[in-house]
Amino acid sequence: MNKSVFLEDLDAFTYREALASGEAIVLIPVGSLEQHGPHLPLGTDTILSSHFAEGVAKRLGALVAQPIAYGYKSQQKSGGGNHLPGTTSLDGAALIGVARNLVKSFLNQGVRHVVFINGHFENYQFLYEGIDLALEELGIGPGAEQSVLLLSYWDFVSQDTLARVYPDGFPGWEIEHGGVLETSLMLHLEPARVAMDRLVDGPAAVLPRFDRLPVVPERTPATGCLSSAAGSSADKGVLLYGQVTDHLALELAGELLGQPAVIPV
Amino acid sequence: MNKSVFLEDLDAFTYREALASGEAIVLIPVGSLEQHGPHLPLGTDTILSSHFAEGVAKRLGALVAQPIAYGYKSQQKSGGGNHLPGTTSLDGAALIGVARNLVKSFLNQGVRHVVFINGHFENYQFLYEGIDLALEELGIGPGAEQSVLLLSYWDFVSQDTLARVYPDGFPGWEIEHGGVLETSLMLHLEPARVAMDRLVDGPAAVLPRFDRLPVVPERTPATGCLSSAAGSSADKGVLLYGQVTDHLALELAGELLGQPAVIPV
Amino acid sequence: MNKSVFLEDLDAFTYREALASGEAIVLIPVGSLEQHGPHLPLGTDTILSSHFAEGVAKRLGALVAQPIAYGYKSQQKSGGGNHLPGTTSLDGAALIGVARNLVKSFLNQGVRHVVFINGHFENYQFLYEGIDLALEELGIGPGAEQSVLLLSYWDFVSQDTLARVYPDGFPGWEIEHGGVLETSLMLHLEPARVAMDRLVDGPAAVLPRFDRLPVVPERTPATGCLSSAAGSSADKGVLLYGQVTDHLALELAGELLGQPAVIPV
Amino acid sequence: MNKSVFLEDLDAFTYREALASGEAIVLIPVGSLEQHGPHLPLGTDTILSSHFAEGVAKRLGALVAQPIAYGYKSQQKSGGGNHLPGTTSLDGAALIGVARNLVKSFLNQGVRHVVFINGHFENYQFLYEGIDLALEELGIGPGAEQSVLLLSYWDFVSQDTLARVYPDGFPGWEIEHGGVLETSLMLHLEPARVAMDRLVDGPAAVLPRFDRLPVVPERTPATGCLSSAAGSSADKGVLLYGQVTDHLALELAGELLGQPAVIPV
Amino acid sequence: MNKSVFLEDLDAFTYREALASGEAIVLIPVGSLEQHGPHLPLGTDTILSSHFAEGVAKRLGALVAQPIAYGYKSQQKSGGGNHLPGTTSLDGAALIGVARNLVKSFLNQGVRHVVFINGHFENYQFLYEGIDLALEELGIGPGAEQSVLLLSYWDFVSQDTLARVYPDGFPGWEIEHGGVLETSLMLHLEPARVAMDRLVDGPAAVLPRFDRLPVVPERTPATGCLSSAAGSSADKGVLLYGQVTDHLALELAGELLGQPAVIPV
Amino acid sequence: MNKSVFLEDLDAFTYREALASGEAIVLIPVGSLEQHGPHLPLGTDTILSSHFAEGVAKRLGALVAQPIAYGYKSQQKSGGGNHLPGTTSLDGAALIGVARNLVKSFLNQGVRHVVFINGHFENYQFLYEGIDLALEELGIGPGAEQSVLLLSYWDFVSQDTLARVYPDGFPGWEIEHGGVLETSLMLHLEPARVAMDRLVDGPAAVLPRFDRLPVVPERTPATGCLSSAAGSSADKGVLLYGQVTDHLALELAGELLGQPAVIPV
Repeated sequence: MNKSVFLEDLDAFTYREALASGEAIVLIPVGSLEQHGPHLPLGTDTILSSHFAEGVAKRLGALVAQPIAYGYKSQQKSGGGNHLPGTTSLDGAALIGVARNLVKSFLNQGVRHVVFINGHFENYQFLYEGIDLALEELGIGPGAEQSVLLLSYWDFVSQDTLARVYPDGFPGWEIEHGGVLETSLMLHLEPARVAMDRLVDGPAAVLPRFDRLPVVPERTPATGCLSSAAGSSADKGVLLYGQVTDHLALELAGELLGQPAVIPV
Repeated sequence: MNKSVFLEDLDAFTYREALASGEAIVLIPVGSLEQHGPHLPLGTDTILSSHFAEGVAKRLGALVAQPIAYGYKSQQKSGGGNHLPGTTSLDGAALIGVARNLVKSFLNQGVRHVVFINGHFENYQFLYEGIDLALEELGIGPGAEQSVLLLSYWDFVSQDTLARVYPDGFPGWEIEHGGVLETSLMLHLEPARVAMDRLVDGPAAVLPRFDRLPVVPERTPATGCLSSAAGSSADKGVLLYGQVTDHLALELAGELLGQPAVIPV
Repeated sequence: MNKSVFLEDLDAFTYREALASGEAIVLIPVGSLEQHGPHLPLGTDTILSSHFAEGVAKRLGALVAQPIAYGYKSQQKSGGGNHLPGTTSLDGAALIGVARNLVKSFLNQGVRHVVFINGHFENYQFLYEGIDLALEELGIGPGAEQSVLLLSYWDFVSQDTLARVYPDGFPGWEIEHGGVLETSLMLHLEPARVAMDRLVDGPAAVLPRFDRLPVVPERTPATGCLSSAAGSSADKGVLLYGQVTDHLALELAGELLGQPAVIPV
Repeated sequence: MNKSVFLEDLDAFTYREALASGEAIVLIPVGSLEQHGPHLPLGTDTILSSHFAEGVAKRLGALVAQPIAYGYKSQQKSGGGNHLPGTTSLDGAALIGVARNLVKSFLNQGVRHVVFINGHFENYQFLYEGIDLALEELGIGPGAEQSVLLLSYWDFVSQDTLARVYPDGFPGWEIEHGGVLETSLMLHLEPARVAMDRLVDGPAAVLPRFDRLPVVPERTPATGCLSSAAGSSADKGVLLYGQVTDHLALELAGELLGQPAVIPV
Repeated sequence: MNKSVFLEDLDAFTYREALASGEAIVLIPVGSLEQHGPHLPLGTDTILSSHFAEGVAKRLGALVAQPIAYGYKSQQKSGGGNHLPGTTSLDGAALIGVARNLVKSFLNQGVRHVVFINGHFENYQFLYEGIDLALEELGIGPGAEQSVLLLSYWDFVSQDTLARVYPDGFPGWEIEHGGVLETSLMLHLEPARVAMDRLVDGPAAVLPRFDRLPVVPERTPATGCLSSAAGSSADKGVLLYGQVTDHLALELAGELLGQPAVIPV
Repeated sequence: MNKSVFLEDLDAFTYREALASGEAIVLIPVGSLEQHGPHLPLGTDTILSSHFAEGVAKRLGALVAQPIAYGYKSQQKSGGGNHLPGTTSLDGAALIGVARNLVKSFLNQGVRHVVFINGHFENYQFLYEGIDLALEELGIGPGAEQSVLLLSYWDFVSQDTLARVYPDGFPGWEIEHGGVLETSLMLHLEPARVAMDRLVDGPAAVLPRFDRLPVVPERTPATGCLSSAAGSSADKGVLLYGQVTDHLALELAGELLGQPAVIPV
């Protein structure tokens, strides 16, 4: 039982030994339950952020908390829209509340650093707010020993990787929803949960530069994906997962463990 | 991919087929990340409620949503107290918010019935409030087609099972925290996650009939368990899991599918 | 004016003398405005918790604050349901807010111990949350001088009393709504407010082991009571009130005043 | 039991008969638990608003709900300040929440008109907000059958009464805290709860025209009263109570029952 | 750039010099976007409170923050009602939240005193609550160096001025909505924004002494003004603006700068 | 008075004529009060979004509401951090609340389309949430006549403009805080509020790809700007303002007025 990096697997006494060092790091994957087209499962974002957290945790000697498995409402520009069946979301207050509570709980227990590993575009600002409110309540300001980090894993994809994964040019992160990046990662990490035979090719969605509410449903492609997953492969998944995990682990080691980190961006 | 009962494994199009019947039932396991002594993992409540949900779903043809993996604050009388490391909790507003959002999302998608399967004592009233607020917002009142059910799995343990699991007398549900019921179930369902060699025997906790805050920490046994798990066995777990799953499935079938249900209590 | 145990009767200067000892105890009765069948008044829960608070206060030298006269929504399993006319309820946030504010106000004034005496089943967890939030805001943790206690009066009915009040067997606390316990207590304490001639006998309600929302109204008996009050008597009320007040006073004296308390359960 | 105007005394079936007319009016007294000097009890505001509600209810055939017995924070300019022991308050959100819930509960039960009778200066705007939010949620707009009224009883004191109660000139409502009006009313309505021998005479408080927070405590007179109660009498209380109850009853009858109301202001 | 009293015009480095003294005072005008009849612009309340803030700031060496340009819902008794087009309002929670955040931000930056200059009747209590919550969070109590003041500018109109502006008698502040005071001030301060040719004369509104919700729309005069602006003049505006600015500056100087202030009321 | 596009300048009757067409569009500028280095004023974001709103309004025949002048907390990665004096912020709940209230108010008045023109990076998601909550409350879903749009003005800068404004390469929107874009726009639109002699040149900030809280203050350059404004010019401001206003007006005309819009991206 004790070899797992997952908090849900640890007993309380083993966990307390980890806390006793004063250096415990807890990673919290954050995802969504959201439609990802006909070829990817609803849990894609949570599955991927959990895999990144696990990979990084093993490198850093960190622990992985249970994921926040429901995310903020899907926006049409980045997830097709919250009106699509399968997309099951929290509003801002609930997501802020969850993040705020988890930060307070972990820091009060003596965790040194909490790191949110985000895998759903729309979550970011609400997680930030939850973290900020928690630190204000705890009275933790600049110079404190404890800290909380927040990141989205795709921000750690290097230019080089991008060029190799998207040889015809990168369409942009916002419409990478059910596209080549997520599909390739899933093909590598969870092949049994991908149905490549159901994949529908087609042009990327062209959405206005504003958000409109209520949405105009027909602006989202019928697949629910904003860019095509054609061209996805497990090999690209290997590359993506390896490079991002490397960079994440190095950069977090540099930030949290004081190890020199020279990372090409 | 399509054979899974877990929503996170389904793609959106397969899920929409399930919704198209107008009869979809979604079960939501609810647990906690909470200390359960030296022999059980922190995720025990979530693990168990997920297993019950899976078992029931297979019987009813229902789906299982991702669990609510963090629960309301542990109270000393039922979970040892929220001050114990490993116990990582949501406050009332956050848990109400999560439940309210999930009910709204699922019912808006066309799910016919949502069922919360609770595995952490302290959650119950906050889940109830989240459900009630959601239905009020949706304008769903008596006589509506859609409904939401809320239950704790231990309320479906029969008197007969109880007598066989606790031959020396049942100590009460509130102090069944890390005790014979949870441990036996885990031995049956997740034996690799139980460390029986770390189990500490001892008398059940004797706590006052009031809640006191702040807690008097020494009132909680050093193990964090409120009653001893000595006497747990995988066989008892088989009995408990089978009987409760049976009764749950029958009673829900009677309520939601209109099937006659004759259940001994 | 000064002899009253009720805060609303005290002038501020007399109250400040009580605070000056550093040992002031304030009891807050909590009830509801809720239908209790044709024979009991809507204010039953508030009336009874106020009487228990008064009895205990006289024994402990404590003060009684104005009651929280509106409670959390009536649940069908314990109060017949919130849809019944006469049942006038607060949602979770409002009740949490009231409890939180009262705890903060009283502890900031210098009250040593605040004790909530609950008389409405559904209130409990929301009061707990209000107390916990208040103590967190005030920075009061384990080892502090000040404390808050929370209890429901029926948890102090002894097994012996139970056997005498329910010679045919006790039906369970949840369905003790408008039943023998409440009616007997009212017959003893407020006979003019009981109309025994309007009492309707009948079998106890048989409700499922889950909560269903929206409620199925016909599951609640037409009286709104979940068990029959037939067999109630002022004599049973004398017994109940005396025994519970005794045990409550002894147990609180032991907890708050450091007096040895040997109480048969 | 049935002759009482107080809801807490009514059984649910009698109450339902009142609702069946479609014309039921429920009055809700609102007060505070607040220091009122050495001669008046902490519950003064709640006691007085309850008496006015009772008097009006008897005239209108209306019912009186349990009072909201805790009010918004005492402001230095109108109540001496919230820092004074004995003053036990709700914050804005809690008071808004209570008012909002009560309006929703009563109107959903079929009450035609709800009337808040306020007796604590600082409550007013928060009650208004609670009412407005409730009506928005219920979808009740101009032209609806149901309505909610909000008033403070002192706004119904006539110029003539004022001249007779304050022969030396009226000091203003804001500093009428523990002064001649409240004391005279209490001498008439609850003489046993007034201690005229403890009354301290002195000049009225002179407070700036702004609110300052945190308060400068010494700006509040040592008595906690903002104007002297010297000159109070039961006779003035008879006059005040009679005139205000008359005008209130007439004006409400005109508004809610369609009766012609000719009231001198 | 540096000579402006308006914070929005200052660069951060110049502002930090002002903070460095430890004596910085920031004035926050508060208004509304609200119908003010056919002759005054929707922004009247914000425009006027901003002018008063500017005038006072120049006298005190204070700074003026950007106004809170949207206010609490217009009440029929003081603003004609929130149903009138052009009236664009915040609910209580939003206004409390804005005030609370601004107080926290400014005091955390090192501002010594924050002063809210209110120009919309209905805002007052919500601003008060925002201030009080902020100070509680910051732990600022009696005796602290920092403070927050709250005032409505019309409370500083002297009796003498009132007699000169309303030679036929003052109708009361509540119905001074689009009337002589506001119109005269606008004629003096922003003549291009007043259309005297559109002014509609007529008797003052006669409204009940209670608030009724939902409103009875026809009780508000067709103009949306509660009293006539006939008799307004720029000369009266000069008098009002000069006298109020004088008294405000003197009284604030006395309170915040320790200067003797002898002000006729 | 009537020629102004600013709502604060309009009287209510003129505004109602605009509403009567059923086609009224209201633009709401959103900014911040935030440090922008030594050369730009604290109000920069609000000033710029107001100018864009004004320019677009004149082209579309729309109206401009008073700006939301305080924004969400400055994040270190996009605004230097919320700890810097001059930065005066709202938390998420307050900003969500303001946006939600404004949408409800304007749509209830009969405005056809509301458009938020954002000028502060961190605001976006909270505005989105406020809009979404408002539409849910109003029951406005896909296919409705009314809509709300949300955009940040920099998303309308064309590739061509970017190449001309940043001849050495564009550093990215996140660190465009007090840099060439904002400074050039201010030099064109509000030259008197810019102090080019105080501008400090230097390399762009290099910040990690994660957010860290609490911030490490020394990661923000001493100026508070994240990229240098060297190279700013009024000419670039003319180009930026003209091109963005053009594209915004065309794209909004296409979306809201049904006019064909062919816009190069």
